[in-house]
Amino acid sequence: MQAVEIIKKKRQKEILNTDEIKYMVNNYVIGAIPDYQMSAFLMSICINGMNEEETSSLTNIMLHSGEVIEHKKDPKPLIDKHSTGGVGDKISIPLAPAAAACGLRVPMIAGRGLGHTGGTLDKLESIPGFRTDISSSDYVKQVEEVGCIIMGQTSSIAPADKKIYALRDVSGCVESIPLICSSIMSKKLAEGIDGLVLDVKFGSGAFMKELSHANALASAMVNIGRHMNKHITVCITDMDQPLGSMIGNSLEIIESIDILKNQGPKDSTELTIELGAEMLLLGHLVKSLEEGRKKITESLNNGSAFNKFLQMVKAQGGDLSYIENPNKFAQSHKKIVLTAKENGFISRMNCEDIGTASSLLGGGKFKLTDKIDPAVGIEIHAKIGDKVQKDQPIFTMHVNNKGIDEATIKLTNSLSITQNLISKPVICLEKISTL
Amino acid sequence: MQAVEIIKKKRQKEILNTDEIKYMVNNYVIGAIPDYQMSAFLMSICINGMNEEETSSLTNIMLHSGEVIEHKKDPKPLIDKHSTGGVGDKISIPLAPAAAACGLRVPMIAGRGLGHTGGTLDKLESIPGFRTDISSSDYVKQVEEVGCIIMGQTSSIAPADKKIYALRDVSGCVESIPLICSSIMSKKLAEGIDGLVLDVKFGSGAFMKELSHANALASAMVNIGRHMNKHITVCITDMDQPLGSMIGNSLEIIESIDILKNQGPKDSTELTIELGAEMLLLGHLVKSLEEGRKKITESLNNGSAFNKFLQMVKAQGGDLSYIENPNKFAQSHKKIVLTAKENGFISRMNCEDIGTASSLLGGGKFKLTDKIDPAVGIEIHAKIGDKVQKDQPIFTMHVNNKGIDEATIKLTNSLSITQNLISKPVICLEKISTL
Repeated sequence: MQAVEIIKKKRQKEILNTDEIKYMVNNYVIGAIPDYQMSAFLMSICINGMNEEETSSLTNIMLHSGEVIEHKKDPKPLIDKHSTGGVGDKISIPLAPAAAACGLRVPMIAGRGLGHTGGTLDKLESIPGFRTDISSSDYVKQVEEVGCIIMGQTSSIAPADKKIYALRDVSGCVESIPLICSSIMSKKLAEGIDGLVLDVKFGSGAFMKELSHANALASAMVNIGRHMNKHITVCITDMDQPLGSMIGNSLEIIESIDILKNQGPKDSTELTIELGAEMLLLGHLVKSLEEGRKKITESLNNGSAFNKFLQMVKAQGGDLSYIENPNKFAQSHKKIVLTAKENGFISRMNCEDIGTASSLLGGGKFKLTDKIDPAVGIEIHAKIGDKVQKDQPIFTMHVNNKGIDEATIKLTNSLSITQNLISKPVICLEKISTL
Repeated sequence: MQAVEIIKKKRQKEILNTDEIKYMVNNYVIGAIPDYQMSAFLMSICINGMNEEETSSLTNIMLHSGEVIEHKKDPKPLIDKHSTGGVGDKISIPLAPAAAACGLRVPMIAGRGLGHTGGTLDKLESIPGFRTDISSSDYVKQVEEVGCIIMGQTSSIAPADKKIYALRDVSGCVESIPLICSSIMSKKLAEGIDGLVLDVKFGSGAFMKELSHANALASAMVNIGRHMNKHITVCITDMDQPLGSMIGNSLEIIESIDILKNQGPKDSTELTIELGAEMLLLGHLVKSLEEGRKKITESLNNGSAFNKFLQMVKAQGGDLSYIENPNKFAQSHKKIVLTAKENGFISRMNCEDIGTASSLLGGGKFKLTDKIDPAVGIEIHAKIGDKVQKDQPIFTMHVNNKGIDEATIKLTNSLSITQNLISKPVICLEKISTL
């Protein structure tokens, strides 16, 4: 078998067999296929696609390029959630402990932010002492003892995905449904899960800016799930405006704590409950979505979700006093309030620009080497559909000394106000499931 | 400007502007864009194509990545010929001196063979002492003094093409009309020519195995010629069987000498005359193709073409005694004759397999590091349309000790004999020109 022949096949839109995909991936991982052949191969996949069989093979090969975690035998189902990423999307942080409080095990491996999106790990690391770099054995132990964990990808989990993802990022091959599917699924299946709830974000702040693309990704994920005998529920959810009322690292931990006490913003709380209910349904701990919603809401109301969060933070070395008293989180030096320029209804928010504004202030990274400032970010006081008065505060920027002018311009331009009544967006747009 | 953004544009089938193409090519040449980005970019061009403007820009940028030769002022037009390559295609060797004998200057930069095709330089180097590695100043001098040269690409000619071609070869990006066009044209225009006759080979021994692809390449080349204000005539010629009666390095020099004395095989002589006539027409040295054919034929009959070849070989250090007495060329140790298995008409020759057979015997390279044996090759005694008797010789293999069994199988299987009368193929199938 020769790499060039396999590349040519995909270039000519032919179907690859498992051996051919295995040859490319495994030889790339050991360095026998150079980056320049792999990037040409990935580009041919980006443009010409892969069918279900090919995508499943690719997923399987990437999954088995590393360790597949074996959790202890336990009647508690192992269910995880993954989001394709957006602005203000801190849902994993309240969701994992809430779902664990309801009887699931949530072995979540999360990522870091880049560009306009924040990363769950970056947010958690704003809790002093919180460790996300955890060994496989401690991972299994914490999932067993606490019921949930949110940690970073170890080098032993799907190394093929790690290497391929890094190459896709620098060779213009990120936006490809088979490559996105296999990347998500290989990592998630390596967690040893029974089922996965996937939150596909759609809108101006998401990677998927068209509903047809989000739908295509959702269907592809469900098909791969069926192919690989894993239950998957995909929710396509709104990312036309930031989720919740906080963007930034410690700011989003503070909002997460609010959600865990059922004192959070309406939209982010609603999504936590909805995704949690889907997780419980996938784990067969409830018979209906309605029962799932009730159970998650209960966990937020009775303190069990918050307690689970405390256990998780403690197990991962985080300073609990910050969780118990969020005022302890470092504050930015200055707050700048941006106000509405006219009376009316908010009709549009350029969500990507709002996310970029937070990153510009230091809340996110544009290069992997950028340092994150946990204190900065953006508070949002009004959202799409809200009636606002001229000079009413819309954004509060929490700033130190970085990117203030640029962020101000981005935020100012991100908003449209109209005189017509505007309806508030629905959070959860569509669902599709293997169930 | 960022490489990844430009790659994404072409991935999404958008049109690139000159600055974007220049950014990619020039930064690749200086090493600022790594191979893995360039190969992804080339693959996106392979699949999504380029329009005329893009291809012309790419050609121009590659052309100006190195030296563009300036020949001395001289009324003799500078016209070259290029072939896309085939089996037994030695036409450049008799053609360059014949065209020069008729009053053109032919500043030919030729290539080496790989896989099933031979290379003009490899063939010429079977003449002891013949040098193909020549400086730009000696190049200009020989073109002026002798009227023709056949030499290798120098490092100063289109270095971008050299680097990009090497990458295309190892990343499955060879078969692409805009990439083929720009590669040929950038090198040829760097020769400082006034016009070019392009021989696009089509058939079982050519890279273009379908007439529609050959046509597409021909049209693209003529369009680029128009865009770049250069006269180009493209001839689509048959490569469903080997050209002439010899395949192999010194064997093809021997056939070339025969052609130069008008004692060569009918097909290779006819093509030499036809392409030569087109060159004279492009150079305005004749008023009609018929006049051109007469003039070239005359040069073969009156010894002026052969004398020009002697001058060229002498100027490039070759031992003239071999040209004057071709029996001096080293002979292979053994000759093996393969015969017809039945009476009938030859209906098909797998031309690529016949070329591969010659390479297997040591006449060609499969890797750049393979060494060429100038003495080996294949003599062809009958061709498509010929009536043959059982046990009549079809091929004589000139062998040393390499690849005999494999080559025998390839040759045996390359032939089909039928009972029906078969017409002989036409050499020159189609022509298209900027004239």
